[in-house]
Amino acid sequence: MHRNWLSLFLIALMGSAHAQDRPNVVVMLADNVGYGDIGAYGAGEIRGMPTPNIDQLASEGLRFTQFLVEPGCTPSRAALQTGRYSPRAGLGSIIVGGTPNTLQASEVTLGELFKSQGYATSYVGKWHLGASEQSWPTRQGYDQFRVGVIETTDGTLYRDSMQRTGLPEALIAASEPGIWESEANGNLKKIRPYTLDYRRQVEGDIATVAVDYIGQQAKAKEPFFLFVGWTNTHYPSLVSPEFVGKSRSGPYGDAIMELDHRTGQVLDAIKTAGIEDNTIVLWISDNGASPTEGPAESRGGFNGPFRGEVGDALEGSLRVPGMIKWPGKIAPRASNSMVSIHDFFPTLAKIIGADIPKDRPIDGVDQSDFFTGKQANSKRDSLITFIGDEIVAVRWRQFRIYPKQFVSSAGNPSMAGGAGYRAELAGYPSIFNIEQDPREEVNTTAVNGWVIAPYLKLIGEYLRSLEQYPNPKAVKLTEFNR
Amino acid sequence: MHRNWLSLFLIALMGSAHAQDRPNVVVMLADNVGYGDIGAYGAGEIRGMPTPNIDQLASEGLRFTQFLVEPGCTPSRAALQTGRYSPRAGLGSIIVGGTPNTLQASEVTLGELFKSQGYATSYVGKWHLGASEQSWPTRQGYDQFRVGVIETTDGTLYRDSMQRTGLPEALIAASEPGIWESEANGNLKKIRPYTLDYRRQVEGDIATVAVDYIGQQAKAKEPFFLFVGWTNTHYPSLVSPEFVGKSRSGPYGDAIMELDHRTGQVLDAIKTAGIEDNTIVLWISDNGASPTEGPAESRGGFNGPFRGEVGDALEGSLRVPGMIKWPGKIAPRASNSMVSIHDFFPTLAKIIGADIPKDRPIDGVDQSDFFTGKQANSKRDSLITFIGDEIVAVRWRQFRIYPKQFVSSAGNPSMAGGAGYRAELAGYPSIFNIEQDPREEVNTTAVNGWVIAPYLKLIGEYLRSLEQYPNPKAVKLTEFNR
Repeated sequence: MHRNWLSLFLIALMGSAHAQDRPNVVVMLADNVGYGDIGAYGAGEIRGMPTPNIDQLASEGLRFTQFLVEPGCTPSRAALQTGRYSPRAGLGSIIVGGTPNTLQASEVTLGELFKSQGYATSYVGKWHLGASEQSWPTRQGYDQFRVGVIETTDGTLYRDSMQRTGLPEALIAASEPGIWESEANGNLKKIRPYTLDYRRQVEGDIATVAVDYIGQQAKAKEPFFLFVGWTNTHYPSLVSPEFVGKSRSGPYGDAIMELDHRTGQVLDAIKTAGIEDNTIVLWISDNGASPTEGPAESRGGFNGPFRGEVGDALEGSLRVPGMIKWPGKIAPRASNSMVSIHDFFPTLAKIIGADIPKDRPIDGVDQSDFFTGKQANSKRDSLITFIGDEIVAVRWRQFRIYPKQFVSSAGNPSMAGGAGYRAELAGYPSIFNIEQDPREEVNTTAVNGWVIAPYLKLIGEYLRSLEQYPNPKAVKLTEFNR
Repeated sequence: MHRNWLSLFLIALMGSAHAQDRPNVVVMLADNVGYGDIGAYGAGEIRGMPTPNIDQLASEGLRFTQFLVEPGCTPSRAALQTGRYSPRAGLGSIIVGGTPNTLQASEVTLGELFKSQGYATSYVGKWHLGASEQSWPTRQGYDQFRVGVIETTDGTLYRDSMQRTGLPEALIAASEPGIWESEANGNLKKIRPYTLDYRRQVEGDIATVAVDYIGQQAKAKEPFFLFVGWTNTHYPSLVSPEFVGKSRSGPYGDAIMELDHRTGQVLDAIKTAGIEDNTIVLWISDNGASPTEGPAESRGGFNGPFRGEVGDALEGSLRVPGMIKWPGKIAPRASNSMVSIHDFFPTLAKIIGADIPKDRPIDGVDQSDFFTGKQANSKRDSLITFIGDEIVAVRWRQFRIYPKQFVSSAGNPSMAGGAGYRAELAGYPSIFNIEQDPREEVNTTAVNGWVIAPYLKLIGEYLRSLEQYPNPKAVKLTEFNR
């Protein structure tokens, strides 16, 4: 008996040592924040909207200057949760009212990865991966879903428009977005409508819940994975009263400053809880800003030197701020190595010792050696971009290669980004050098025709993967019967 | 007698102490380098053309993120040398072949300021303030003029074009730009034609002469003022053989990298000479890059987040990289306070104890208290921009106010910047908020009409100054008899 007690004691000790080894992970995902919106990326005071907390995080971690995402909220979030190109999960289009796409039960998410390793897991804030039960965070590996914006913030604008259209209140109320909270059994309960009024309060509530969770988990000495889905700076730019008029750059600037402050609250909670040294913090945006979309008074997002915005497939839609901090493990620095949002799934799996699924293609690559400095550069030098399930752009090294042409604006300021035009090309791809020509104004196909070979190779590899693992049917909103 | 000797000894000592007090000043002026061309401003590796030397200088000094110039080589250089708006010196237009504008003998230059305080003075490289004798650097306060590009680098392209036009060799040779060297009496001697071949060598020669001068002056223990007028990255982008193919961004990237290397040679010379602690280094560009001008193969300059290019009056033409280092006196930092190229004349005068002219308007403001931290922010919050002698833009705080409209490109890629269109406005100025809208796409006159008051006040003050001090006749190339 004594010996058995000793064994149990040793096992408990080892278990606790093991727990100690495993870092906590906090992911903060901003919504529609552009490359030109954050101080560490050349904005801040220069744009009349300082971001000292995010800048501080950037200076303490690895700041990516070539961090690429998918061109929209849902696709990018699907890529982050699954490590896969969004069309593989049928999520290559942004979920909007009435579209049937939703995260499938069969997908393996970050939540499930961490759960498999015994982490406590929590999802706070915006989800946007489908509202059907199989898609709920609580059915996808997260212990809880708090201040749950299961849809997106666009919906806060619909009530007014539906009322003016004369629709009946019952219909309006039924389609009004909600704030959801999970119960012990993982069921979701709508605790309030997500109104324009509450839009001013949601970011503060997300921060409060995240801060409390960090404190509780630190006390419980249980390793945790916390996912914070911020709602800023998605339109409408309605902020908490103390941030109204805080920036020199209008309501959008105020929203950036509230986002920075809320980020600071979470970072402070990690410090206060005494777990800073053993906590990985990943702060990223989901896609480029939307300077021409949303209500006019909410505009102001900026993609810095790059052309394009969320919804098209130009660099401005795809290159966003991103940084990761892990004291003592990831040396503070900036790197221009290519990293994509798909990479965090296999990278975090490696770090926490989880297995990634072997029965499906995983498009992300494990960047842990690059992050921790065992390897100087990223393992990635390419990325395919989709809208729906269609290939609309390929990145290979410094080249952007397009089988389609995105036409921004063309004189109509409400027709850009996701609301922009797309034209068929004559039959040959366009090739831009994003280093030489950040605004993608000079098609270099004539001198860089050789780039078509790696472009076709990348597409060929992807298409071959579909033979064994076909994509689910994609949701299309502008093409039918084809 | 003994007492007299002692007095002389004391005077010599005091003189030497005085010399010790006065810092050496090295100004490096880059040519057509854009806000988006330098690593410290978000370029570097991100654009495939690292600039480690300039970035290092930026990190050791005060880096300006809102440094404004005039919209062209000649106007900006006139403003830098005189501290005055360029039309006051009749230099509001770029000097090109056959234009009569030239720096007048009556102007007081930086060279004369430093000379008045007993400095040794040297001008190396590009001048572009007129080739008539009264305008020579050696007639404007500089002891010598070395590797003298008295005109500009455009001229290297003319021979080929003139030959193909069938002009006689005598005429071509007569109008070919030269490299000039001054003699002991200050006369200039053309030592070689400035050919396309020599264009590859000129930057290295400028660096060599600057490096030698620094070494000699340090040995002589004589305070000096060295002005280095780089020729990069003005087109054509032809670099020294060791820089060909060095960047990932074509010939323009190679030229940026050579400029960075040459800058490093000058900085190294200051260190090697042991005078780093007592030497002020100012590194600035003269105006925005020219992404659509110059031979196609030389293009690649980039004005970062800002629209516009050299020759128009948009922010991309006017906001450029700029930094100043003075160890122990100017704390390393970045500042978004507004500084203009006119300010260095009174600021450097203050630092070296020189008087600035009282018989004419000086538009620059003394920024020494701001630079050295005695005052938190700049003393400047406005700037008027001219082309010829016409007011084409006014900057007040974060607002850009235009009495004219500059139309970039309008579908024709060879019609932008100085080669672009200008349109008359209906009768009301356009107002852009450069913080909120760095690309100047949203005219905010409707909501910011109140900004017209400070705009008119600034213009009124300028116009009143003309009553007492009328401008010389401006050179106009597109308007006559008016």
